[in-house]
Formats: sequence, C-alpha cells, structure tokens
Amino acid sequence: MQLYIGNKNYSSWSMRPWVLMRHFGLPFEEVMVRFDGFEPDSAFKTTIARTSPTGKVPVLVDDDGLVVWDTLAIAEYLAERHPEQPLWPQERRARARARSYCAEMHSGFGALRQHCSQNLEASLPEVGAHLLATQPGLQADLDRLDTLWSEALQASGGPFLFGGFGIVDAYFAPVVGRLRTYALPMSPTMAAYADAVWASPGMQAWVADALAEQDFIAFEEPYRTGR
Amino acid sequence: MQLYIGNKNYSSWSMRPWVLMRHFGLPFEEVMVRFDGFEPDSAFKTTIARTSPTGKVPVLVDDDGLVVWDTLAIAEYLAERHPEQPLWPQERRARARARSYCAEMHSGFGALRQHCSQNLEASLPEVGAHLLATQPGLQADLDRLDTLWSEALQASGGPFLFGGFGIVDAYFAPVVGRLRTYALPMSPTMAAYADAVWASPGMQAWVADALAEQDFIAFEEPYRTGR
Repeated sequence: MQLYIGNKNYSSWSMRPWVLMRHFGLPFEEVMVRFDGFEPDSAFKTTIARTSPTGKVPVLVDDDGLVVWDTLAIAEYLAERHPEQPLWPQERRARARARSYCAEMHSGFGALRQHCSQNLEASLPEVGAHLLATQPGLQADLDRLDTLWSEALQASGGPFLFGGFGIVDAYFAPVVGRLRTYALPMSPTMAAYADAVWASPGMQAWVADALAEQDFIAFEEPYRTGR
Repeated sequence: MQLYIGNKNYSSWSMRPWVLMRHFGLPFEEVMVRFDGFEPDSAFKTTIARTSPTGKVPVLVDDDGLVVWDTLAIAEYLAERHPEQPLWPQERRARARARSYCAEMHSGFGALRQHCSQNLEASLPEVGAHLLATQPGLQADLDRLDTLWSEALQASGGPFLFGGFGIVDAYFAPVVGRLRTYALPMSPTMAAYADAVWASPGMQAWVADALAEQDFIAFEEPYRTGR
C-alpha cells in the first residue's frame, strides 16, 4: 500500500490516515508530494494528478492498484481490510457515534480549520488570542469540542474517545496540533485528551517528521514571515 | 426510527438519507423542523437542539434512542442495520470507490454548493448562465461530475453509478436537483444519469413533497423575491 501525503508540517488531512496506519502498525509506503503551490501547473498538482482523481491528498493506493481517496473512505477501507484491528469501536452504538464525530469533523469546525491552519512547528499564542477575540466562531468550535470530547470520554472512561486509540482519535489529531500551535484555551478534560493524543506513538512519529522538514511554504503561512 | 429533516424544497443534506430510506423501503417516521432561521433563538435551532448535537439536520434517532448525525454516519449506520439490502456495492473495490465519491461530495464541490443552493421548485436558468460566466469554480465542479459519473457508469453499465441505486446515488440526488433548477450544461452521459436519478421512486417522492410545501423562506432565496 502507498499513502500519498503533503508536507507533514502543514497537511492536516494527510495526517489522519498516516497517524492511524502508523499507530496500528499497518504496513505502507509513504509518498510525500511537496506543496510548492496549488495552481494547476504547480509541481504538486501535476504530480498528484497522476494518482489522485481529485488532485488532493491524501490518497491511498492498494497493491492491486485500487485508488481510495478522502480520509473517510480511506478509514473505512482500512477498517474493512483489517477486521482484526479495532479501528472502529467494536460495539454497534459506539461505532455509530464514532462515525458521527468523524463526519462532523469532516464537514464542520469551519472557524478552527479556516483560521488556525495546521503548522506543527510554529508557536503562535498571540495569534490564537487575537483570533479568539475577533472570530466568534472559534470559541463556538472550542465549546463543541469540549462537549463532544467530554461526552465520549465520560462514556468510555478514556484515555481515548472510545477507550483505545482509533479512527476517531486520528481524526482529531490535527485539532490537537492546532490547540497547541495557537495555545487555545482548554478545559481540564480537553487538555488531558489532547495530551493523550499528542503522546500516542503515531502522532509522535508524524510530529517528529514534521519538525524535521524545515520547509517554510509561504502560502501555508498566514501568520509567519519566516522560520 | 425517526429522521429529522428541514424543508424539503431547500434542505439538500436532509434529502440524502430520506431518499435513500424511501428508495429501499426502510421504515421511518419523518420529523420536519421548518427553517424559520438559523439564529440561536430561532424556532428551528431551539427545536433541533433537543435532538441534534450539532444543531443541524438531518439526524437519525433509532428506536433504542441512539442518535446518529451527519449523512455519512447515517448512511453507514443504515448499511450496517440492513445488511440484506445493497445500500453499498457488494464488491469490495466498488464499495471503496463509492465511499470515495461520497466523501468527495461531503467536503467538495464547493462552488456548486455555495452558488447553486437547493431550490427544487424554482426554475432559474438565467441565474445558472450568469453563475457559469462569473464563477470559474462552477465549471470545474461540473467537469469533475462529468468525469466521476462517466467513469462509474462505464464501469458498472448503469443506470446508476454502481448498477442499482445505492447510497452514492442518494448522495448525488441533490446535485441532480441543482442541475435542473439552474439548467446547467450536461454531457449526454450526465443527462442520462440525472434523468435516472430524477425518475427514481425515492427522489420522486421527495420532489413531490417539496413542491407541495409552498413555503418561501427568504434567507434560503439568494435569487428569487417571491414564489
């Protein structure tokens, strides 16, 4: 299996399946396509177009040539291919809730995603404070995260949303990165969960690679002018 | 099972699971919550907040009280609850492609979704022509639809994307409505597929209800001033 991804410091969607596969030890070959730009003639777009029907990352290519794109379809595919691993919760009702959370993340949390773009190597607490003061949607997103995480952790007992680490935790891994980069306020429950995700082995491996990239990409940097 | 939805003329996300369940004859009770507004103190938001963790429709409530939200999670839940029905393609690779298409629709086709809001009773060909001339992203979305539908139909033989009607066709049902409302240009392959979806029984039932609503909601009407 090959997983096509973008820059680890910046690509929050790439991060989800990579962290998941690494956490569960699923074998795959990583193919990193650098974000030089998103114009049609950029090296990124011309390269990824050979594999990805949408021109986006991540894309999974199985050994038989099957191409699966978008994080949710990749997650479902991996869960079907590895029924021996608890990628989704085993219990039917818990699994339905986990899928609801993932789908909510997939289309929601717009303020957090728009204003707090992923930048794992950066520390931008002043930007976070400014955004909180000027973007009312951001606090609403944080409040929803607090509710969602607290509910799930209370039901499961933690340390991850449904007990052991799974797809839904990989889905929130980029959120944990954003909370840290922008030093956004967290309840004690949120902070404990964020710490658990941050310390998990797939996440740690991704972050280590991201820090090693040292590749400043101007169009991914709304707030910094250099490293 | 209860399915909470918004106005049928306007709510494209509500349409997907409703059309799916109706097509397959899955029993459910419809609970319509009218779109009077999306402010926190609107009747819609205060009503739906009692059931929906995100304050959005659709939401599915199973007989045991389990709440499932967001169309993708609802679709997966229904597929698990009704393994006797071919909601997803039976074949593993086809199923992975169907999920990729649904996930792509879930987070993509931004220009089509933003500019061509669902309005099943309206006929707005002049608006469609103007949008095509002024919004370059719209033609790109149509081109992608043509590629996606053509590929799937060629592989399956049609009339639906994977042969028989399934989740992925319910996912594109609102797109078919938009193509008609705004009279957007279609290749012969697109037109044949759009006609097949339009004529399918779940879709016809939804459209009939939408036309019967006769409820003009100003904030859902960027282009009309009255019925």
